[in-house]
Amino acid sequence: MKLTILFGGASFEHEISIVSAITLKQKLSGFELSFIFCDQDHTFYLIEPSKMKAVTFSKGEHKKMAKLSLSHGAFVQKGLFSSVEHGGVFLNLIHGADGEDGTIAALLDFFSIKYIGPRIDASVFSYDKRYTKWLCDARGIKSLKYEELSLKEHNNIKTPYPVIVKPSRLGSSIGVSIVKEEGELDYALDSAFEFDSSVIVEPFINGVKEYNLAGFSADGKFYFSIVEEPHKEEFLDFEKKYMDFSRSEQVLKAEVSKELETKLRVNFEKVYKDLFEGALIRCDFFVIEGEVYLNEINPIPGSMANYLFEDFKGSIELLSNSLPHAKRARVNYDYIHSISKAKGK
Amino acid sequence: MKLTILFGGASFEHEISIVSAITLKQKLSGFELSFIFCDQDHTFYLIEPSKMKAVTFSKGEHKKMAKLSLSHGAFVQKGLFSSVEHGGVFLNLIHGADGEDGTIAALLDFFSIKYIGPRIDASVFSYDKRYTKWLCDARGIKSLKYEELSLKEHNNIKTPYPVIVKPSRLGSSIGVSIVKEEGELDYALDSAFEFDSSVIVEPFINGVKEYNLAGFSADGKFYFSIVEEPHKEEFLDFEKKYMDFSRSEQVLKAEVSKELETKLRVNFEKVYKDLFEGALIRCDFFVIEGEVYLNEINPIPGSMANYLFEDFKGSIELLSNSLPHAKRARVNYDYIHSISKAKGK
Repeated sequence: MKLTILFGGASFEHEISIVSAITLKQKLSGFELSFIFCDQDHTFYLIEPSKMKAVTFSKGEHKKMAKLSLSHGAFVQKGLFSSVEHGGVFLNLIHGADGEDGTIAALLDFFSIKYIGPRIDASVFSYDKRYTKWLCDARGIKSLKYEELSLKEHNNIKTPYPVIVKPSRLGSSIGVSIVKEEGELDYALDSAFEFDSSVIVEPFINGVKEYNLAGFSADGKFYFSIVEEPHKEEFLDFEKKYMDFSRSEQVLKAEVSKELETKLRVNFEKVYKDLFEGALIRCDFFVIEGEVYLNEINPIPGSMANYLFEDFKGSIELLSNSLPHAKRARVNYDYIHSISKAKGK
Repeated sequence: MKLTILFGGASFEHEISIVSAITLKQKLSGFELSFIFCDQDHTFYLIEPSKMKAVTFSKGEHKKMAKLSLSHGAFVQKGLFSSVEHGGVFLNLIHGADGEDGTIAALLDFFSIKYIGPRIDASVFSYDKRYTKWLCDARGIKSLKYEELSLKEHNNIKTPYPVIVKPSRLGSSIGVSIVKEEGELDYALDSAFEFDSSVIVEPFINGVKEYNLAGFSADGKFYFSIVEEPHKEEFLDFEKKYMDFSRSEQVLKAEVSKELETKLRVNFEKVYKDLFEGALIRCDFFVIEGEVYLNEINPIPGSMANYLFEDFKGSIELLSNSLPHAKRARVNYDYIHSISKAKGK
């Protein structure tokens, strides 16, 4: 199949998006792949597949390649006398800002471009950790208690130590710290507020069981990945996570009971249904005293969590044949006509 | 001041957006106004101010005017040998889909265009009535109990009659019905599901006190309109509301106690803060037994609720000087450089 991977973006996760795209080039070999890069100034470039290497971007060599602009149904490469259209199905692989905050979704929807990725609403509820909590509360999904701090008011916290401090709106562990005692709080808050004006504080539970589950729905049916128990480190810092985005080897299935797997799937469906259609997402869960808690939603997981799927290529193909399309209102000017008539004009 | 009004959109409220724009042309006379029309196919046109009449659009005469495309910081009119930029501050006056669902916000943000209007997050929480309820619950704002029906499952409702049935994602009373008894329910649901796959049902309280309050924040301070008690009809149907969007005469202040006005303002601030910055919104409230309930948020009220402000032009000017701008991450390729070095490349 034909697929265009859209990556880059003006985001703190710009570089990991590049790594992710390079990994997918390998994992989706056999597909007819194209690559469109969004640079930090929001200019789009068509990248030759043979140039899909990290140095192309760090050295700025992409600037010599063809510039593209958005048009109805396609990205367009304008020539002096004619233009070339790059259409078909896209995969939004822009991690963090732009890609996961609803911006790219809106652009592609507005220009009627078909894509794999979260829609605007889904982006808002997964990008901002506060809104993920609201989603949990509304849909009966358990999540850890939290408090919100703003840059202006953050003297005391009520959560007992140890706590974890996170910017509300970033992914990939950027600006995240574990704080074991009060003396370490200020530094952690400074780091977090460097990236966002809103910060959330949650209890940090040492040794908590963590499980990741990816999946999507197509033709009204859910398709799940295997359950993964991620590496047991306190948490992945940015550099480790960065390497993590280039993962391409199938991981081992976590040893979980059938009962727990079902619980994880039920919670995944609660998150996904009527919101994430069109996206392949990864939900990261905690299990505390047998109960499943949602930790976070990755609406565009690193390298699309390819390593969790037994048939990754088949999954992408299934999903791309079941993409939602925005229903657009048609205008017939009935009201204006009837009012003009009433006025005798 | 210079201001460009963006109106139209592929929305059921396309026509009322035209009426709204024509009204603002009159209310903001003295400003240096430009008008950009988004047609139902998402093509942008620069409309000559003298052609700002309903018939221009119903007769398709806008198609003879200059086409514009989005570019960094401006809409651009491309000529054969040169192009003209239309920049400055914009006012998003696209009611309903496109304008109020986050799409236009994302487009303008992506292209670094300054605008008055709700940002992506704010749009999502006001456009979908279910998410407005979640916002209320999270921020301690009272709202009516509701139940959600989906197209697939809607046999019984639990809310006692009379009820009001609304599509989850439309404004301007489109598809809304009051249902007095079970026998009327099916027809009401059919009407609502014609516009949306999700419908909400709320108790209908005959004769409930309604108050509207508009406002915005600028330089960290709130500015409020007068409180209005809207017309006492069961509710405004689309045709009446359509006429309503052309309102330009200052209305009379509702007779409310200082105490109630303060309560309304406190609730308005709870809705607005850290979400609606950059927008002038109107909140529609119910008052039941002395308690304030949020009914709905209009993030782009009809003709910007000009008739509620004593100094409407001054308000628009204040707000346009206090617009948030998206902080954009800068990329330095540190990680790629360090990894390339480690690999010895």
